[in-house]
Amino acid sequence: MNAIKTVGLLGGGVIGAGWAARCVLNGLDVIVCDLDPEAERKLGEVVANAERAYRKMTLAPLGGPGRLRVTRELEDAAAGADFIQENLPEREDVKIPLLNRAAKAARPDVVIGSSTSGLLPSRLQAEMAHPARFLVGHPFNPVYLMPLVEVCGGDKTSDETKERATAFYASIGMRPLVVRKEIDGFIADRLMEALWREALWLVNDDIATAAEIDDAMRFGPGLRWSFMGTFLTYRIAGGELGMRHFMDQFGPSLKWPWTKLMDVPELNDELLDKIVAQSDAQADGRTIREWERLRDDCLVAVMQGLRGHGFGAGAVLQDYDAKLFERSHAGPAVAVDIGKPLRLHTTRVQPEWIDYNGHMTESRYLQVFGDGTDALLRHIGADADYHARGFSYYTVETHIRHLREVGVDAPLHIETQVLGADEKRLHMFHSLVETKSGTLLAISENMQLHVDTGAGRACPAAPEVLAKLQPIARAHAALPVPEGAGRAIAMPGPKV
Amino acid sequence: MNAIKTVGLLGGGVIGAGWAARCVLNGLDVIVCDLDPEAERKLGEVVANAERAYRKMTLAPLGGPGRLRVTRELEDAAAGADFIQENLPEREDVKIPLLNRAAKAARPDVVIGSSTSGLLPSRLQAEMAHPARFLVGHPFNPVYLMPLVEVCGGDKTSDETKERATAFYASIGMRPLVVRKEIDGFIADRLMEALWREALWLVNDDIATAAEIDDAMRFGPGLRWSFMGTFLTYRIAGGELGMRHFMDQFGPSLKWPWTKLMDVPELNDELLDKIVAQSDAQADGRTIREWERLRDDCLVAVMQGLRGHGFGAGAVLQDYDAKLFERSHAGPAVAVDIGKPLRLHTTRVQPEWIDYNGHMTESRYLQVFGDGTDALLRHIGADADYHARGFSYYTVETHIRHLREVGVDAPLHIETQVLGADEKRLHMFHSLVETKSGTLLAISENMQLHVDTGAGRACPAAPEVLAKLQPIARAHAALPVPEGAGRAIAMPGPKV
Repeated sequence: MNAIKTVGLLGGGVIGAGWAARCVLNGLDVIVCDLDPEAERKLGEVVANAERAYRKMTLAPLGGPGRLRVTRELEDAAAGADFIQENLPEREDVKIPLLNRAAKAARPDVVIGSSTSGLLPSRLQAEMAHPARFLVGHPFNPVYLMPLVEVCGGDKTSDETKERATAFYASIGMRPLVVRKEIDGFIADRLMEALWREALWLVNDDIATAAEIDDAMRFGPGLRWSFMGTFLTYRIAGGELGMRHFMDQFGPSLKWPWTKLMDVPELNDELLDKIVAQSDAQADGRTIREWERLRDDCLVAVMQGLRGHGFGAGAVLQDYDAKLFERSHAGPAVAVDIGKPLRLHTTRVQPEWIDYNGHMTESRYLQVFGDGTDALLRHIGADADYHARGFSYYTVETHIRHLREVGVDAPLHIETQVLGADEKRLHMFHSLVETKSGTLLAISENMQLHVDTGAGRACPAAPEVLAKLQPIARAHAALPVPEGAGRAIAMPGPKV
Repeated sequence: MNAIKTVGLLGGGVIGAGWAARCVLNGLDVIVCDLDPEAERKLGEVVANAERAYRKMTLAPLGGPGRLRVTRELEDAAAGADFIQENLPEREDVKIPLLNRAAKAARPDVVIGSSTSGLLPSRLQAEMAHPARFLVGHPFNPVYLMPLVEVCGGDKTSDETKERATAFYASIGMRPLVVRKEIDGFIADRLMEALWREALWLVNDDIATAAEIDDAMRFGPGLRWSFMGTFLTYRIAGGELGMRHFMDQFGPSLKWPWTKLMDVPELNDELLDKIVAQSDAQADGRTIREWERLRDDCLVAVMQGLRGHGFGAGAVLQDYDAKLFERSHAGPAVAVDIGKPLRLHTTRVQPEWIDYNGHMTESRYLQVFGDGTDALLRHIGADADYHARGFSYYTVETHIRHLREVGVDAPLHIETQVLGADEKRLHMFHSLVETKSGTLLAISENMQLHVDTGAGRACPAAPEVLAKLQPIARAHAALPVPEGAGRAIAMPGPKV
């Protein structure tokens, strides 16, 4: 079985473009089959949006981007792919014939996943060549950020196909959930559909507007659902007495008229017009691109918040980050010219780094400098594995000068000069530069002490770390001492 | 109408205790009527948990805590209250007689809110004395953190009651949503109930376990629901073509068998046992207190992440913060002894501040020092109003020495000495102290420059700011210069 290098995407709409962005940003080449003459522009916009979100989501090197090619020929996309993902309209009469064509053109061992939200894989694969390699891999919008992918096989799907698809989806940062029994709508869409039908009734009966219903979710249960779902939330609501107590207390309400779902609202013109008008009012004049960016920013913020607790989608992000760092170390070493200050860390000013003055806030400077320090430490091998062995460098002293303000989205990089090093100490000097203009924004000098973290005291660094550090320190000793190094804070002149 | 100083709570279970915690932490006195002999201990534990979460949620001074008293006499709680909130079991035959007794004992102008999840206010108020002051104020667990409260009046509820209740709930940091038409289950619980019934079917039919269903939510749609709800999410999924396109595409699936909610699952012993067993497996041996803390941490992290974008629950938190700061300034000035370093900022080490070494990470030191600087600036009147007038202090230089590591949850405070000041400059020295042991953890020296933020250049501070700053600078000039001030980074001895 070959490694997956090229992904073929059948359909490049909202879902297909989301897959394209996720794959390209994970370093995979992508061939998208789409007949829209504007497909290339639209795909490019989605990839750009996704890249913007990824820069906020992870500091890890993505190892991409891969190449993106658009074709009008289904067979072209299918024949060149190591993995195929179908994202066509939600109709069996569209999906089945095109899937069958793709299966004929593809290598027989290539897995074909369908993004269907709820059609049954057994029906989609019924007439397919080599049906054992087909399954559903149902993603959620935006595909480049949402971790969940529901994996559901049909009657003819092999276990190996499920394993390979699950491994592939996980390798691009997703959280596969294997749906063990084939069922219309799988799991998530059944829950979404039940809630959605109730929401449509509430609008239909003029109980609440679209905006009021969304508020009822996002200020209330939606917050809990983002990390715990419904069962665990209710268990905790049961207090010390647990789930049985909760069920005893709330069981009876199952018989009460708390949903109207014994019936389905008719989606006639009147209801449709009402929903569209309420949705327009809610959108408040912002464009779809503005809403997409706000959605992505919020998704990233929620996942990053949860990462701090290693829970839910935050745990998925934590694993993904670790994998990306590992992969970047396993790859071919990047040639670094040690004859000048090292450029090992680049980033962009995030909206949430801005303070009440409209500029990057004070502590974010130190965060970026700290990321620069970590990049140098990883570069000399003082990385996660090294920490696991019980060794680390601790910062004991830092001096920062803020020279220029910087606004949102500015590209930044750090240039690092090693001012001195011995077995236990590492003295470095960072320059924070606005990359586009080359403006020096701030400088920071710091002293690192190498420690045995178990014993809690200083000790010499490992020989292999010193072997990487010493050539840099010797080469940098020949560079001029940067302006501002060794400076103390002073306030000359008369005071109050 | 008098200001609300004392809140009477009828029932001190999970919901009542949550109200007690929210009220007490917002500086209100609370009288809880509960017959449980352990009520006092249980309430104390919930308040302690809530206080822990509030310390993470906001840096603003809470102006509390209020006093908490437990009584076994319903009339005692009702007669002494300026606002009454009922949190009794979800049964009309329990709620109605006790609400009627409370209404007789209470002042006629006191608003009575019921926490019912879905009983109709018109039925609850039918026989009540002064029924116009009764309504439903339906909160969500944990009440001390979740912003949403659904406000729903009955036939006899006055508009004034709705306005007063809405203002009260907002004043304690909540986001009231007025339910305009009286309906069983209001809005949020109807949505929750529809989703919950579908989830019970999935367990009943062995399609998925409790943990799988929760995963389908928290790695997928639950993430989006936490800030956008369902309508806005779907609108964005419609891409450039908007809501009508989305409805055209997904409308047909309303007729497909994607939920089983035409029927209600029977909650028999078999289903109940299955749910309890699956829930126990999911709880993974953690205690209810551990789960509560993790839930609270995640809720706070999600809301804080969203605050960075001023959206959803993050916007509610932003407003609440601003209100708390405003209230603390409006209150009586706190006497500060300027003859010694000022102690204006206290906090605790948050779990998300911990790095891979298990200690508070580098940039969080500067964050805490920055919060200390802001506290001094607010103290001399360089606050949000001052920024709005176009003036601010910018940090131009910072020096930090890390002396000791510190672990999670340690109480911290900052002592600040003004080393010098003139019309444009402010030179200060912070000591970061572990409050319990008095250990000095780190020191930081910084130089602030006063700027006209519109013009983007230095300018003299306003006279009223200088009038507050100068006495402190003069008094502190008499103090000894702290050890470590004016220090530069140096690395003596042989290098590599």
